[in-house]
Amino acid sequence: MWKESDNKLKATFKFEDFTQAFSFMTEVAFKAEKLQHHPDWHNVYNTVDFALSTHDAGDVVTDKDRELAHEIDKIFKRYE
Amino acid sequence: MWKESDNKLKATFKFEDFTQAFSFMTEVAFKAEKLQHHPDWHNVYNTVDFALSTHDAGDVVTDKDRELAHEIDKIFKRYE
Amino acid sequence: MWKESDNKLKATFKFEDFTQAFSFMTEVAFKAEKLQHHPDWHNVYNTVDFALSTHDAGDVVTDKDRELAHEIDKIFKRYE
Amino acid sequence: MWKESDNKLKATFKFEDFTQAFSFMTEVAFKAEKLQHHPDWHNVYNTVDFALSTHDAGDVVTDKDRELAHEIDKIFKRYE
Repeated sequence: MWKESDNKLKATFKFEDFTQAFSFMTEVAFKAEKLQHHPDWHNVYNTVDFALSTHDAGDVVTDKDRELAHEIDKIFKRYE
Repeated sequence: MWKESDNKLKATFKFEDFTQAFSFMTEVAFKAEKLQHHPDWHNVYNTVDFALSTHDAGDVVTDKDRELAHEIDKIFKRYE
Repeated sequence: MWKESDNKLKATFKFEDFTQAFSFMTEVAFKAEKLQHHPDWHNVYNTVDFALSTHDAGDVVTDKDRELAHEIDKIFKRYE
Repeated sequence: MWKESDNKLKATFKFEDFTQAFSFMTEVAFKAEKLQHHPDWHNVYNTVDFALSTHDAGDVVTDKDRELAHEIDKIFKRYE
């Protein structure tokens, strides 16, 4: 589901409605804060897009992004 | 899972950890706000307790509580 | 703070850190759900961008967007 | 605002409505997770009650509770 392009790790997730999308975002927010690695993300209604990269490494994709992507996938599993 | 006692509809839900419990609470909060019927709820770490009743009906259990309980169950299903 | 361009009502808000930004987003999410008018929004760390327009009106700015913008401003006041 | 009784640090906070109360709770949740010290808390509509104690210390009030209480006060300041 994740694709690397423009030095970013990108994916799009779809939900039933806005409140499911935002509840998913809440759990991702906790995980991001725990990892101290925060996403570049975008939401419109039931859709959440991510474009992950590591600022401190010069805005390229690092293992920190892959770890966050993996955690996001685990959270998303509950909404599928 | 829900039991009626003391004119309240009660249930307890367990999660893996605090952040899962709070993400569940976030989705319940949206649903409660939508129904304009808010829970009496209590959280410690991975546990969330509810004691639902309808204030406007004299603090007894009404269909509004049963509807909210049903919605809570649907949200919880994703965390089981 | 809001500017209209490309048929969107746009603004950017800055916070102390990610958790303040996300708490602000949570309250905006409740308001958006109540108005049944959801933002196109984007977050990176302590920054939240909005680009509001009304899909049902052909993706132009309507009073629904101005109302949501006004509510977002009221919520933001607490974080200034 | 905080009072110690029954080996717990207790306080009650009032908000304009449920969504303000829950947005406050969201920010407290992030802080609690960061401190890895989670509250015993209870919400009904616009009211949030806390009863803080430290489980690992035998359910008495410790500096961890005083630190969390201090952080809760800082978050609440924005809602007064």
